[in-house]
Amino acid sequence: MSSKRQLRLGAFMRPVSIHTAAWRYPGGTPDANFNLKALIQYAQTLERGKFDAFFMADHLAVLNMPMEALKRSATVTSFDPLTLLPALAQHTQHLGLIATASTTFEPAYTIARRFASLDHISEGRAGWNLVTTSNPDAALNFGMDEQMEHAERYARAREFFDVVTGLWDSWADDAFLRDVESGIYFDPAKLHVLNHKGKYLKVRGPLNIARPVQGWPVMVQAGASDDGRQLAAETAEMVFAAGGPIEAGRAFYADVKGRAAKVGRNPDHIKILPGAFTIIGSSLDEAKEKRARLDSLVSYESGIAALSIAVGQDARKFDPDGPLPEIPETNQSKSGRERVIALAKRENLTVRQIAGRLGGYGGLAMMGTPQMIADQMEEWLTTGGSDGFNVMFPYLPGGLDDFVNLVVPELQRRGIFRTEYEGKTLRENLGLPRPENRFFSAAAKAAE
Amino acid sequence: MSSKRQLRLGAFMRPVSIHTAAWRYPGGTPDANFNLKALIQYAQTLERGKFDAFFMADHLAVLNMPMEALKRSATVTSFDPLTLLPALAQHTQHLGLIATASTTFEPAYTIARRFASLDHISEGRAGWNLVTTSNPDAALNFGMDEQMEHAERYARAREFFDVVTGLWDSWADDAFLRDVESGIYFDPAKLHVLNHKGKYLKVRGPLNIARPVQGWPVMVQAGASDDGRQLAAETAEMVFAAGGPIEAGRAFYADVKGRAAKVGRNPDHIKILPGAFTIIGSSLDEAKEKRARLDSLVSYESGIAALSIAVGQDARKFDPDGPLPEIPETNQSKSGRERVIALAKRENLTVRQIAGRLGGYGGLAMMGTPQMIADQMEEWLTTGGSDGFNVMFPYLPGGLDDFVNLVVPELQRRGIFRTEYEGKTLRENLGLPRPENRFFSAAAKAAE
Repeated sequence: MSSKRQLRLGAFMRPVSIHTAAWRYPGGTPDANFNLKALIQYAQTLERGKFDAFFMADHLAVLNMPMEALKRSATVTSFDPLTLLPALAQHTQHLGLIATASTTFEPAYTIARRFASLDHISEGRAGWNLVTTSNPDAALNFGMDEQMEHAERYARAREFFDVVTGLWDSWADDAFLRDVESGIYFDPAKLHVLNHKGKYLKVRGPLNIARPVQGWPVMVQAGASDDGRQLAAETAEMVFAAGGPIEAGRAFYADVKGRAAKVGRNPDHIKILPGAFTIIGSSLDEAKEKRARLDSLVSYESGIAALSIAVGQDARKFDPDGPLPEIPETNQSKSGRERVIALAKRENLTVRQIAGRLGGYGGLAMMGTPQMIADQMEEWLTTGGSDGFNVMFPYLPGGLDDFVNLVVPELQRRGIFRTEYEGKTLRENLGLPRPENRFFSAAAKAAE
Repeated sequence: MSSKRQLRLGAFMRPVSIHTAAWRYPGGTPDANFNLKALIQYAQTLERGKFDAFFMADHLAVLNMPMEALKRSATVTSFDPLTLLPALAQHTQHLGLIATASTTFEPAYTIARRFASLDHISEGRAGWNLVTTSNPDAALNFGMDEQMEHAERYARAREFFDVVTGLWDSWADDAFLRDVESGIYFDPAKLHVLNHKGKYLKVRGPLNIARPVQGWPVMVQAGASDDGRQLAAETAEMVFAAGGPIEAGRAFYADVKGRAAKVGRNPDHIKILPGAFTIIGSSLDEAKEKRARLDSLVSYESGIAALSIAVGQDARKFDPDGPLPEIPETNQSKSGRERVIALAKRENLTVRQIAGRLGGYGGLAMMGTPQMIADQMEEWLTTGGSDGFNVMFPYLPGGLDDFVNLVVPELQRRGIFRTEYEGKTLRENLGLPRPENRFFSAAAKAAE
């Protein structure tokens, strides 16, 4: 293996690509969100490209767009990640499988159990993208009149993490004896009842499934606000970072790694992977043309709807050809609002231009030849910008095939990306330690 | 196809068999609850035997037994059904996949979405065993201090059913246009927002997944109390009946079909499948010997714990060698208590004998040669006792292999069981109609 610093690559997937207009792009797959065969093919291509993980984005509601935009959106129907990934596990051997699940709307016991189950079924390839869910429409689907306040969502998420990891540690790794002769199935001394009673949650335990193969599935987080960064620093092992200019990326990287160190964690054990939307061409111009074509397939209605979601208010009232007006902070995603304000300022864009960008994909984009994309990735990797990327593809399967066939070999040639998987589990491939059981580790025993 | 009345066969599965001591039986699989390969093999054998469905039992807690019994129980660790079945779907083409899920503890939106997702992933093979969860320990894992009262659980379940089926009907079957040219993904006139506000649930909708392949996954229910029977009559398409003597089975069958007719349903569209624990031998004596050997591997602690669960109180205080004392009704499973009282009376058993029976498997058992078992099944089928069975195997894989290799051919020879699957979906194989969309059917349109 190369002694060079190694990239980690996740694939950040929506069933029909992250780009709103991907389903209309020539060679795209408009029905991928109904089409298990297509998703199996994507997963197998990612595994051929030695990706660390298939990372499935998710929402708990049809997105709150006006109908003129919504009716153009392929996001309205999607497999549930925790139902899809066990199926994909049957068609892959190495690829990590990361599902998004919310700490605001689902019971901690079932979250703990389903991720443990996925980890056993996939033999140690599960990851949990812990989200607090900023979309206020999700609350309406779960018996609430409005979304929980931002800081409270994060306080709840922190407690939720403790409960879920505590449930995963219900059983020592060697609890199960299965002694046919004596009839003893497990050693009662190796069972821990959590008995959690906190501010937000009350959960007795134990979990009715053995400790996950990885100890805990890999913890993933994407919060960018102050609350979100702190939660990530305390709990995450992979951070989906927003991207943006490399200077902002470096600042984010240093901030989160610093926060992790401050709470006593090894900063190497929290991998920062910005989202990177990739468009490959035989020249920079060809790549730019592809993007222009893709963006031209985004309707104004969709763009303005995406802007409205990002800033937490109806952007249709803005002057399309004027600059972005002042936008007050709301209870919704703070990071979205900040990102839009920065983008408008940086590139001096009108509302219409911002809408077009956001309606397609508004985050960090890497365009050009495979060499150019490898250059950018290497720069981020070697100058304190990231530990790798959550790669996004402009359309599927073409954009993914191009990345695996053209960019991956270039990264491998440079010695900054694996040619074979290092380990058997997602955790081993990412270079993350297996967490000790908090109730049964040597340290826990010594402290008794 | 035979013109004779046809049996429907589900396989009622716990990972290590329904029988407590199965993991200790020679040739059993003590680690099946960790062992995906074993479960794949079981599913494939069931499909070879043309079973309608793999029906996965479940609990939302480690069972509330004293540790002396609990430490002998293979039930303490189990894959989550909704995580396991998508994996099994990848290794089968025809077998129905029925998951148990609770209306008391999980959000209706995620239940609706996950079963819809499983139905899409399996191309129309999903079923939902709707349970209200009688185990009071489950409540402690979900933030409650005690289990909801029996009648209230059932009232909630009835409303929950309306919400979940209403969410499944969010989209007309032909809502998705995916018109690449115009950029229109779906027809807004074919989207329905549920906006449910009821006594127990408030859920806006729409569901963010297309209508299931089967319209609705097949609805399964197992309630035996008056509330349970009524819920089944109103909502279920398959009923897991408790079994017992054939006269009781006929009375149950007539009662539930009658209740279904009374609420305006076609009684043929609710299939009554009692649980049937099967033990096959080359003679009746050999089958009885197998059962005696299996039951001898059940400890007294496990037996008395099973009795405690069934009657809702600590049975260790009963005189082991005396008759069953008077047992007051509790807030827990009413049907369990009634079943035990009936069993004790019918066979004149002591507490110890009842415990032994319940600790193994206490319900309807069919023993003997393949012909004898086929005789019993045929008698139930042709005399108004059942529409088929939810078969249970004494140990795995042997008990399952024997059933498929020996009993299934005998049933087929008699013309009362399929030799090929009739349809593509679970619903088609069971002979159940595809539900119309309540918001978009011709009838709904005419009523507008």
